[in-house]
Amino acid sequence: MREIEIWFEFGSNYSYLSVMRIEAAALQFQVTVRWKPFLLGPIFRSLGWSTSPFVLQKAKGDYVWTDMARQCRKHGLPWQRPTVFPRSALLPLRVALVGAEQPWIGAYCRRIMTLNFAEDREIDDPRLVAEVLTELGLPAQGILEEAQSDANKLRLRRQTEAAQARGIFGAPTFFVGDEMFWGDDRLDDALAHRVASPS
Amino acid sequence: MREIEIWFEFGSNYSYLSVMRIEAAALQFQVTVRWKPFLLGPIFRSLGWSTSPFVLQKAKGDYVWTDMARQCRKHGLPWQRPTVFPRSALLPLRVALVGAEQPWIGAYCRRIMTLNFAEDREIDDPRLVAEVLTELGLPAQGILEEAQSDANKLRLRRQTEAAQARGIFGAPTFFVGDEMFWGDDRLDDALAHRVASPS
Repeated sequence: MREIEIWFEFGSNYSYLSVMRIEAAALQFQVTVRWKPFLLGPIFRSLGWSTSPFVLQKAKGDYVWTDMARQCRKHGLPWQRPTVFPRSALLPLRVALVGAEQPWIGAYCRRIMTLNFAEDREIDDPRLVAEVLTELGLPAQGILEEAQSDANKLRLRRQTEAAQARGIFGAPTFFVGDEMFWGDDRLDDALAHRVASPS
Repeated sequence: MREIEIWFEFGSNYSYLSVMRIEAAALQFQVTVRWKPFLLGPIFRSLGWSTSPFVLQKAKGDYVWTDMARQCRKHGLPWQRPTVFPRSALLPLRVALVGAEQPWIGAYCRRIMTLNFAEDREIDDPRLVAEVLTELGLPAQGILEEAQSDANKLRLRRQTEAAQARGIFGAPTFFVGDEMFWGDDRLDDALAHRVASPS
């Protein structure tokens, strides 16, 4: 079975589009999804930006919300412009790292994304994250403890450094083998991409 | 007949993709193309950038050339990474403004774009632009004189100001009525977009 990595951030609106549709799309292409949560903030700061370019560049920012509404309509996704952008998502990302190889990761990520981009909720709130985990039938307390352990905090920093080392400059970013695809607009191309077999 | 405006720059690699395919695509959607050449440099400078973000941001720049090669393969377009990027295109843009409403505009734009992005030629050279016009069976001398007249130089500056006033921050950008679509990835969406009829 082929694999696709999705490098994503819960604060990133274009990650929302991909997180919501990647599992269904990957199934059609018979591709397995590998979930790679990382922090976009340090990447942006390394580019000299204090926050999202959609905040720093007013014209682009204005456009992005029109574009998001149209893209969500096209893909049949719920959409409500968040009143806070970009939202901090440190805790939910740490939880995603704990669950990255677990069967619940897809449903968890879709729920967190929906809370941010369709229900305008503060997703970095531990009570809300606990609620989400409990609704999924998971032991919220244990998962939150593991998520906030020093070892896991360090792992998320390391994963963010790995993102940067691989040339990632935004989210979502996909890898199929060593081939990188940036942006929700390249999800279908990435899924269709075939890695050359070693000869 | 519905209309789509394409705001483009001959120095812009993603404009290359759209310029090459818009007339054939628009025909399928029964949409008329309105050509809107403008200068990307002043737009970038107003954002505080001295040149293209693909030069200023190294990781994004590295990615863009991989992406371009893949996109050109996908669309069946010739591709050779220009040895100079972004190329100055002041004269060919001035000529495009002269010809914007003429029947030769599409063929002219495709030829200039091919010279830049498939043949790695210096498109701001008056002899080369004259050659292109002559090959199209046009009176090169007269068109170049009109292109370099003070009135036409001013028109191109005004068109660039108009781009900025409409919220354009990159190229290509499409308008269908008042609805703006940014990037080659939105060309199909723009062509499919229906302007609401006035009630």
